[in-house]
Amino acid sequence: MSDTHSSSLLAIVSHAKEYGFIYPSSEIYEGLQAVYDYGPYGAALKRNVQNLWWQSMTQLHSNIVGMDAAILMHPRTWKASGHVDSFEDLMVDNKDSKKRYRIDVLIENHAAELSAQGEKTRAQELLEKLQALLQAEELAGLHTLLLQEKIVCPISRTANWTEVHRFNLMFATKVGAQEENADTIYLRPETAQGIFVNFLNVQKTARMKVPFGIAQIGKAFRNEIVARQFIFRMREFEQMEMQFFIQPGSEEKWFNYWQQARWQWHIALGLTEEKLRIKPHAQLAHYAKAAVDIEYQFPFGYKEIEGIHARSDFDLKNHEVASRKKLQYFDPELNQNYLPHVIETSLGSDRLILMLLCEAFTEETITEEESAKTRTYLKLHPALAPIKAAIFPLVKKDNLPQKAQEIFKSLKYDFPLIYEENQSIGKRYARQDLIGTPYCITIDHQTLEDDTVTLRERDSMQQERVHVNILRDFLLEKVSFKSILAKLPTIDSVLI
Amino acid sequence: MSDTHSSSLLAIVSHAKEYGFIYPSSEIYEGLQAVYDYGPYGAALKRNVQNLWWQSMTQLHSNIVGMDAAILMHPRTWKASGHVDSFEDLMVDNKDSKKRYRIDVLIENHAAELSAQGEKTRAQELLEKLQALLQAEELAGLHTLLLQEKIVCPISRTANWTEVHRFNLMFATKVGAQEENADTIYLRPETAQGIFVNFLNVQKTARMKVPFGIAQIGKAFRNEIVARQFIFRMREFEQMEMQFFIQPGSEEKWFNYWQQARWQWHIALGLTEEKLRIKPHAQLAHYAKAAVDIEYQFPFGYKEIEGIHARSDFDLKNHEVASRKKLQYFDPELNQNYLPHVIETSLGSDRLILMLLCEAFTEETITEEESAKTRTYLKLHPALAPIKAAIFPLVKKDNLPQKAQEIFKSLKYDFPLIYEENQSIGKRYARQDLIGTPYCITIDHQTLEDDTVTLRERDSMQQERVHVNILRDFLLEKVSFKSILAKLPTIDSVLI
Repeated sequence: MSDTHSSSLLAIVSHAKEYGFIYPSSEIYEGLQAVYDYGPYGAALKRNVQNLWWQSMTQLHSNIVGMDAAILMHPRTWKASGHVDSFEDLMVDNKDSKKRYRIDVLIENHAAELSAQGEKTRAQELLEKLQALLQAEELAGLHTLLLQEKIVCPISRTANWTEVHRFNLMFATKVGAQEENADTIYLRPETAQGIFVNFLNVQKTARMKVPFGIAQIGKAFRNEIVARQFIFRMREFEQMEMQFFIQPGSEEKWFNYWQQARWQWHIALGLTEEKLRIKPHAQLAHYAKAAVDIEYQFPFGYKEIEGIHARSDFDLKNHEVASRKKLQYFDPELNQNYLPHVIETSLGSDRLILMLLCEAFTEETITEEESAKTRTYLKLHPALAPIKAAIFPLVKKDNLPQKAQEIFKSLKYDFPLIYEENQSIGKRYARQDLIGTPYCITIDHQTLEDDTVTLRERDSMQQERVHVNILRDFLLEKVSFKSILAKLPTIDSVLI
Repeated sequence: MSDTHSSSLLAIVSHAKEYGFIYPSSEIYEGLQAVYDYGPYGAALKRNVQNLWWQSMTQLHSNIVGMDAAILMHPRTWKASGHVDSFEDLMVDNKDSKKRYRIDVLIENHAAELSAQGEKTRAQELLEKLQALLQAEELAGLHTLLLQEKIVCPISRTANWTEVHRFNLMFATKVGAQEENADTIYLRPETAQGIFVNFLNVQKTARMKVPFGIAQIGKAFRNEIVARQFIFRMREFEQMEMQFFIQPGSEEKWFNYWQQARWQWHIALGLTEEKLRIKPHAQLAHYAKAAVDIEYQFPFGYKEIEGIHARSDFDLKNHEVASRKKLQYFDPELNQNYLPHVIETSLGSDRLILMLLCEAFTEETITEEESAKTRTYLKLHPALAPIKAAIFPLVKKDNLPQKAQEIFKSLKYDFPLIYEENQSIGKRYARQDLIGTPYCITIDHQTLEDDTVTLRERDSMQQERVHVNILRDFLLEKVSFKSILAKLPTIDSVLI
């Protein structure tokens, strides 16, 4: 009856705009590059995913608590974390066009051109050289490579390049009244430091014992020069992070635990297992002892959605030195003070939304007798879908709207619903398919007789006649987070 | 048995820090002025309140949808809204100390001193003069008043003042790679403009018909010079706003409706009606046709927590002119194009949290035979409380912890719970009182016999013996948002 077409990113971007999920920011002013706004259904989807993640961390685990640090932090935070000195891209300017570029992007694009021209070996060698120079931070070597390869500016078409220089990705602003004396502060480039500087506050006031975790959802900002792939890489983005504080020496156990646990979380959301993979980092960051990414096969290739990192005591140690405050934890079991080590799970909220949209976006060809037509729908998990059910009176007369409103009102305290009385039932179904509503409930003349309605399921398009009385319990079971949460492992089983 | 003491702000600030609700930001670096971080229980309380507000707006009303615009917006947004040109404070510098002050604060503080010295009439006259000069934006007049009153700098003790000048309260930053060519953008000083620039996107993609509303929760930033009163006035804060788009001519009806509806929302949260009041604005902003504040009696006086404003078509008109895009709505009923007028309800999320803490913070003297002791607890509505129930084995032996863990695990998919097995039961109750947990469940030897537990209620401290089987339904009923939502008026009744 149906075959599923592959979905391209463009189709998803366009669907997200057209059906109220994601708009370009400030669109009436021609947009702000690499910034997006969530529309009604996108905002609802995001809230659902965030609430689910929050519950799966803080509610299922008696040793994980949440927090919510401000975006603005004391600037010494970013000195201590290393971001002031080394959170940067390497840039080069073309002296003729006056345009600035990321050097890695210029060279990668050139390699892609070589590859397209059939020179795959040269392209591969070039990329390897690039990696080695970036790794060694050889700025002069990168400049030489640019000239050797005769790479030109796409605008001026010349190779008249400046030296390679560093560009910090943090957004800076001034706080305080006097412009000249005002302190430079930064929009946080990651949420993690808000947890580290509060580590002892949380541990003491919530009386946590190692091992314990602190979970946080919040915005972060990076002045990306090359922003790409829709909401995958944005200048303003949201993270869902959990830092898990452990005894030194137990890194391997907990790193493995969280790698497994986070994998199972994505599976529990209903994602296709074949499209997910775990990829160890080729090179470890200076602070990391071990690191893997969970990657998803987007239309533009496998890309990271979540990182699981063994951060050692790198961050706490740096803050201890910079703040001259003791950040050690007293372990009553060991009767000993130490800086805990940290396993981090860091998930991009917007990337997760993009993954869910890619996974849900379905185009099916339906053949009915002679003709074929395409049905498009979003196969979102009912617990994540923005709207849980739509309520339709079959026609706009004979008291059907009143009856439908009555059912709407009896259910609206439990679920986000849509009420719609215009257009044909077929068009109304199609509309709900496009925004991923899992159930449609139609009230017809028979409803007035026996209180039964037609319940139509989104994916199968199957309809059945059910009594109004069963609707609440039926929907509660289908859309509740519990069905997802029950599939997840929890630490309690590890500890006890 | 008990009498309730009045609570001071200091006691609440200290309680909020000590028990994991709110910490000063970046405290290990001596803090960042007027910025705060939410700890485990504060973050949970905030999420509860925000989810409740979101549901009360978008779920109860079929004609209100949500959205979530980015903090960063195209800079022309703020030119059109008037913020670039006039969102500012009037400042004056002392030439000796080189310190800068808000002129209204200097004069208000002087009036307060006069008042404290018994010169109440002079103080009152001074405040009236100040208001008149601020209203007329007479900068020279303000300077003269400062000199006439011989107001001195608190540091240099001299009256050697500069002229009065303007200071814009928006945080600015640069986006893009080239510092010199980078565009100046702003951290949004209010969330409302994110709704206005997306007005047609939302209306079309969610197929809304006037009257309809767009609700949004998000951060905003203001470079406040004088930040005061804990989380009441912060540099980084969160708003819960709804813009309701209506036919021109229906302003009065909808202004009255929302004034009533928002009042009832606060009452439904369980706030003391006597501590709330509605205050019409003495002077209307240039865009406003009508405006009232809902005020709460904080320890530092009556202060605004929510504003209800008739904004006319001021914002849409300005964006239409600035963007040269048609923002008109086609009304199918009137068969006519127009710019809708707007009624705004704008609630400060952090102020609401502060109000809830002030309202909940209770110190009672308990007299038992000869001795008297003080009990402190947070009388939070169970639906808003961070933790819904605490589970205690009476002692740490005889299999009681295992039984308690079993009950914990059977309930944790439904509620945020705490499990605690250390310390005496009295101390464990006291601890939960301090973070506002409405119920404590104690497992004792009898539980092993007959599956009954002791259920203790926070406010009354009453205990009753109940069967384990009833716990889920009992708690679900007490902590569900439904009991609050059911008390709220909804627009459907107005429209139909």
